[in-house]
Amino acid sequence: MSQYTPPLRDMQFVLHEVLKVEEAFKTMPAHAELDVDTINAVLEEGGKFASEVLFPLNREGDEIGCTLDPQTHAVTTPPGFAEAYRQFVDGGWAALSCDPEYGGQGLPVTLNQAFYEMLNSANQAWTMYPGLTHGAYDALHAHGTPEQKATYLPKLTSGEWTGTMCLTEPHAGTDLGLLRSKAEPQGDGTYRITGEKIFISSGEHDMAENIIHLVLARLPDAPAGSRGISLFIVPKFHVNADGSLGERNGIYCGAIEHKMGIHGNSTCQMVLDGAVGTLVGEPHKGLAAMFVMMNAARLGVGMQSLGLTEVAYQNAAAYAKDRTQSRALSGAKAKDKAADPIIVHPDVRKMLLTARAYAEGGRALGMQVALLIDEAQNAPDEATRRDAEATVALLTPIVKAFLTDNGWLATSHCMQVFGGHGFIREWGMEQYVRDNRINMIYEGTNTIQSLDLLGRKVLGDQGAQLKKFGAQIQQFAMANMQDARMQEFLLPLADLGEKVTKLTAEVGMKAMSNPEEVGAAAVDYLRVVGHLVFAYLWARMARVALDKADSGDRFYAAKLFTARFYFAKLLPETASLIRSARAGVEPLMAMEEDWF
Amino acid sequence: MSQYTPPLRDMQFVLHEVLKVEEAFKTMPAHAELDVDTINAVLEEGGKFASEVLFPLNREGDEIGCTLDPQTHAVTTPPGFAEAYRQFVDGGWAALSCDPEYGGQGLPVTLNQAFYEMLNSANQAWTMYPGLTHGAYDALHAHGTPEQKATYLPKLTSGEWTGTMCLTEPHAGTDLGLLRSKAEPQGDGTYRITGEKIFISSGEHDMAENIIHLVLARLPDAPAGSRGISLFIVPKFHVNADGSLGERNGIYCGAIEHKMGIHGNSTCQMVLDGAVGTLVGEPHKGLAAMFVMMNAARLGVGMQSLGLTEVAYQNAAAYAKDRTQSRALSGAKAKDKAADPIIVHPDVRKMLLTARAYAEGGRALGMQVALLIDEAQNAPDEATRRDAEATVALLTPIVKAFLTDNGWLATSHCMQVFGGHGFIREWGMEQYVRDNRINMIYEGTNTIQSLDLLGRKVLGDQGAQLKKFGAQIQQFAMANMQDARMQEFLLPLADLGEKVTKLTAEVGMKAMSNPEEVGAAAVDYLRVVGHLVFAYLWARMARVALDKADSGDRFYAAKLFTARFYFAKLLPETASLIRSARAGVEPLMAMEEDWF
Repeated sequence: MSQYTPPLRDMQFVLHEVLKVEEAFKTMPAHAELDVDTINAVLEEGGKFASEVLFPLNREGDEIGCTLDPQTHAVTTPPGFAEAYRQFVDGGWAALSCDPEYGGQGLPVTLNQAFYEMLNSANQAWTMYPGLTHGAYDALHAHGTPEQKATYLPKLTSGEWTGTMCLTEPHAGTDLGLLRSKAEPQGDGTYRITGEKIFISSGEHDMAENIIHLVLARLPDAPAGSRGISLFIVPKFHVNADGSLGERNGIYCGAIEHKMGIHGNSTCQMVLDGAVGTLVGEPHKGLAAMFVMMNAARLGVGMQSLGLTEVAYQNAAAYAKDRTQSRALSGAKAKDKAADPIIVHPDVRKMLLTARAYAEGGRALGMQVALLIDEAQNAPDEATRRDAEATVALLTPIVKAFLTDNGWLATSHCMQVFGGHGFIREWGMEQYVRDNRINMIYEGTNTIQSLDLLGRKVLGDQGAQLKKFGAQIQQFAMANMQDARMQEFLLPLADLGEKVTKLTAEVGMKAMSNPEEVGAAAVDYLRVVGHLVFAYLWARMARVALDKADSGDRFYAAKLFTARFYFAKLLPETASLIRSARAGVEPLMAMEEDWF
Repeated sequence: MSQYTPPLRDMQFVLHEVLKVEEAFKTMPAHAELDVDTINAVLEEGGKFASEVLFPLNREGDEIGCTLDPQTHAVTTPPGFAEAYRQFVDGGWAALSCDPEYGGQGLPVTLNQAFYEMLNSANQAWTMYPGLTHGAYDALHAHGTPEQKATYLPKLTSGEWTGTMCLTEPHAGTDLGLLRSKAEPQGDGTYRITGEKIFISSGEHDMAENIIHLVLARLPDAPAGSRGISLFIVPKFHVNADGSLGERNGIYCGAIEHKMGIHGNSTCQMVLDGAVGTLVGEPHKGLAAMFVMMNAARLGVGMQSLGLTEVAYQNAAAYAKDRTQSRALSGAKAKDKAADPIIVHPDVRKMLLTARAYAEGGRALGMQVALLIDEAQNAPDEATRRDAEATVALLTPIVKAFLTDNGWLATSHCMQVFGGHGFIREWGMEQYVRDNRINMIYEGTNTIQSLDLLGRKVLGDQGAQLKKFGAQIQQFAMANMQDARMQEFLLPLADLGEKVTKLTAEVGMKAMSNPEEVGAAAVDYLRVVGHLVFAYLWARMARVALDKADSGDRFYAAKLFTARFYFAKLLPETASLIRSARAGVEPLMAMEEDWF
C-alpha cells in the first residue's frame, strides 16, 4: 500500500548544482573521468533496484522477520531477502565504491552514499546486511595484512560473503573496555576465541555462503580496559588456501533478538566457542582498527534515518493530497467534494514540511560528508586530504545523531498525518517509526555522539576545527550578503554562528572547573550545531534556487519555500536548546542517586 | 522483567497537600464525609489491583494480542484478561465513582482518576475495556431516557456489561459529519442500523456477557453534515424486559486491526447489519450527546500517557542505578566496581528527570482537572459549578495533547536509557513507546485538540476563560512573591504568563484577516499554554515542598529538585514554540499542493 520513488531529481540537485561534485572529482586522479551522465545513470539504476526489488519486500520482512532453528543454528531471513541479495551481488552493487584492486568498481563514496539512502528508504533491515559488509571491507582494507586482504576483500567486495562487527557483550555496550571475550594464541599465527556477543546485526543468515565476523577480544596479556582489546577476523567457514570453503568455525548464533523494529535483520547473540581467528592490526589496538568500521557505520546510520525520513514523507504527502476530511478554516477548497484534502490544513503541512526539510537538509549533509571522504581518500595534496578528514570527523557525530533524531520526529509526524490509519501496520507508516528508533541507539547512542562532538571534536582541539568550519560559513555569507534576497537566510545563519561561538566558549570555561558540564550540555549542543550546519546547507541550496528562480522550473520554487519553512519553523528550536544547555549541570546533579 | 510500584506517596502529596481535596470535598454534599484515610485506603487497594493483577498481564498481552474467529466473530483477549476483569467487577472497582442510584459507590471522580492512572501504568490495553465502559456510562447517565438508564446503567456500573463508542467510519474520522451509517425507524420506537464502523476499541471480546455499543448514525430525514447525526444504543445481545439477555443483535466484529501497540485491546471493524437500537437524546443531536463521552475519553487518554510515563520512568530509573558502564566524566564514583552506574551521567539524569517532571506535573494536572469535575458535578452553588465546568473545558485539550506528547518524549527517553536493551521487546520499554503512540491520535488527534483550545476555548470567547485562569495564577504569584525562595519559580511563571497573553492577542488579531493563522499556530500554542499550566502547578508544588523543607523528609527535597529541573531544562522549550507560532501561516501555505 506504501510507495517509494527514488528522489533522483533532488539528488542531482545536491550533487551537481550545490556540491558540484564533478568539479571536485576532476581534482582526484581516481575519479577525474567521471561525468554527470555516468553518475546519474548509476543512481537511476540503483534507484530501480531499491524501489523495484527491495521495497516490495519491506512490509513482509517486518511481519515475518527472521527465525532461528535452534538445532542447526541456522537463521532464515524473510521471503525474498536472499534472492534480492543475489541480484544485488550479480548486479555488482556491492562493489560500487570498492577498490578495483580487489574487484571493486572504484566509484566515489559519494555515489555509494546516495545509493544507500535509496536502499534504506526501500528496506532498512535488508540494507544492513550489505551495509555491515561494506564496513568490514573498510576495516580490513585499512588494517588487514596483505594475506588477509587477498583472502577476504575480493569476496567482501563482490558481496559473495558478508561481514559483521562483533563488539557488544551483555555487560559491555557503550563501555567496550569491559568486554571479556578471550583470544588464546595457538602458536600457528591463529587464535582461539571464546566469549559471548550480543546485538550482532546480520550475525547469521541464509543470504551468503560465508560470513566474516570482525570480533573484539582480549589477548591473555591484555591490559585492562579499552587499551587491551584486539581485533580478529573470525569467518563462519574456514577458508582454504585455494579460496574454497573449509570446515565450520566455532562461532554460531545462540538466539535472535525480538525487537521493536528492523525485524528483517537478524540481530544475533553470537557464541564463540574456541572459534579460530586471525589478528587484524596490532595487539591491543583493536578498538582503533574497529573505529574505521564504526565511523563508516555511524555515517551509514545517518543515511538509514535519511532514507526513512524520505520514504515516510513521500507517503504522508501522497496521503494528505488524497484523504479528504473537514474543510479548510478559511472555507471550502475542493467544492466539488464533501470535504477538502487534508493538505489544506496548516498543521498537516507543517508536519509534512518538517519531514521534507529534514530529508532534503539531511541529503545535502550526507552527500557533503561523503564528498569529503572522497577528498580525504583521493585529493592529490596531503593538506586537502587531512583537512577533509578532520571535517568528516567533526561532522560524523552530527550525521549520526542529528539525522536519526530528526528521523524520529519526521517519521512520527508522517505517521500522524495518517490519523488512526497511521497506527495500523498495514499502512506501513508505523514501521518507519519503529525501524528508525534503533538508529538513535546503535553504533554509539546519540548521547555518546554528542560527547564525541563536544568533548573530543570541539573542546578537544580548543574549537580549532569548528572555527575552520565556521570560517567556511562566514566566507559563504560574505560572498552572498550583497544579494538582498539572501538576507533572510544569511542573517539568522550569522546570528546562530555567533551564538554557537559563545556557547562553545561558555561550556568550555565551565568544563574546566567541572567536567560534568560537558555531559550536561552535549546533547543540546549537538542539536544546535546540527542546525548551524543545516542552516548553512539550506542557505547554499537557497542560493542555487534563487539563481534559477526565473527558470520556470517549479523544483527551484519548492526548494526556496522549503528553505524558508526551515528557517521560520525549525531553526527556532535552537533558542530553547541554547537556554537548556546554558542552564548547566546543577539542575541535573542536585538529586541524590537513590532519590530517583 | 519490568516493574511497577503505585506512586501512592506522590498521589497523596498532590491530593492532600497541593490540592487539599478534603477541604474541597467538604463543600460538596455528596462527598462531605470523605476523609483522608478512606481516600488513601482506596488508592492503596487500587494500586494493589493494578500492580498485582494487571501489570503481570501486560507483556504477554502485547505479545499474544487479540484473535478473531472469523466463523463466529468471537474475539479472544490475551491470557488472563478475562479473569482480571472478573476480579475488577467482583472488587467493585467499576462502580467506584458511579451514581449510587444505579449501584455505584459514589466516590469522587478525582479518586477514579488516580485509580485509572495506576491501571494505565499497569496495562493500558486492558484498561481501555473498563475505560470505555465508564465513558458509555457517562453518556447514558447524561442523555439516556429513564428506561434506558434503568436497563443499562446498573450493568455498566457494575461492569458486568462493557461499553464502546462507535464513531469512526473508513471515510469519516476527524470529520464525523461525513459518516454514512443509517438508522431506519421501525415504528415501535426502535431503529434498524446499517453501516460499517472502524477503529472500535474493545468492540468485541470475551470479558463480559454483553457489550453496549453507542453508535452514531443518520436518520432518514437527517440534514447533511455533523448536524444530522444521532446517537443510538445498540446492545450486542438484546435485553429482555426482565433484564435477562435475549437474542444476538445484528452487530458483529468483521475484522480486528493489527496495530503498532495496545495489542491487548481489540480494535474492531464493526459491521451493523440491521442492528436494532434505541435513540439516545434528541434526533440529529447525537454528536453533542457523544461529546459527553468524548470529553471523558480525552481526559482518560491523558491519564493513559501519564500512566505510561510513570511506569517507564520507574523502570528507567531502576536500570540507570543498576547498570554499570563507563566512568563519570569527573572521575570514578563506584570505585569498587569496574564501572559506574549510568545514573552518574548528566544526560541519563536529564532523560530520567524529563520523564519524572512530566509524570509528576501530569499527575498534578490530571488530579486538578478531576477535582474540577467533582466541583462541576457537586458544588452546591451554580456559579462554582459553571466556573469549574468552564475550566475543565479549557484544560481538557491540554490534558489530552500535552500529556500524550509528553508521554511520547518521556517513554522514548526512558527506552533510550536502556541503550540497545531498550529496543528488545523482552525488556518491555519499547512497548510503552508503542502503546503511547496511539494516545496522540485517538479521541481527536493532538492537532484537533490544539484547534479546540486555540480556536474554540480561547479565541471563541475572546480569551475570557483563559484570563480567568491567568488571574488565578497571578493571585498565587502575588501571594508568594514575598518569599525570596519562590522567585526562581514565580519570575519565569509571570514572564510566561505575559508572553501567553501577547501571543494570544497577536494570533487573535492575525486570525481576523486569515483564519488559517489559527491552524498554523495552534499546536505550538497548546504546548506553550501546557507549559504555563505545568509551571503554575510546579510552582504550587514547590511552595508545599519549601514549607516542608525542614521536615527531613527527602520526598520534599526531591520534589524541589524536580521543580528546579523543570524550570531550568523543560520550560525553555516555550522560547522556540513562541517563535515558531509567531512565524505564522505564510511559510506553511506558500507551497502549491501538487509540489508536495
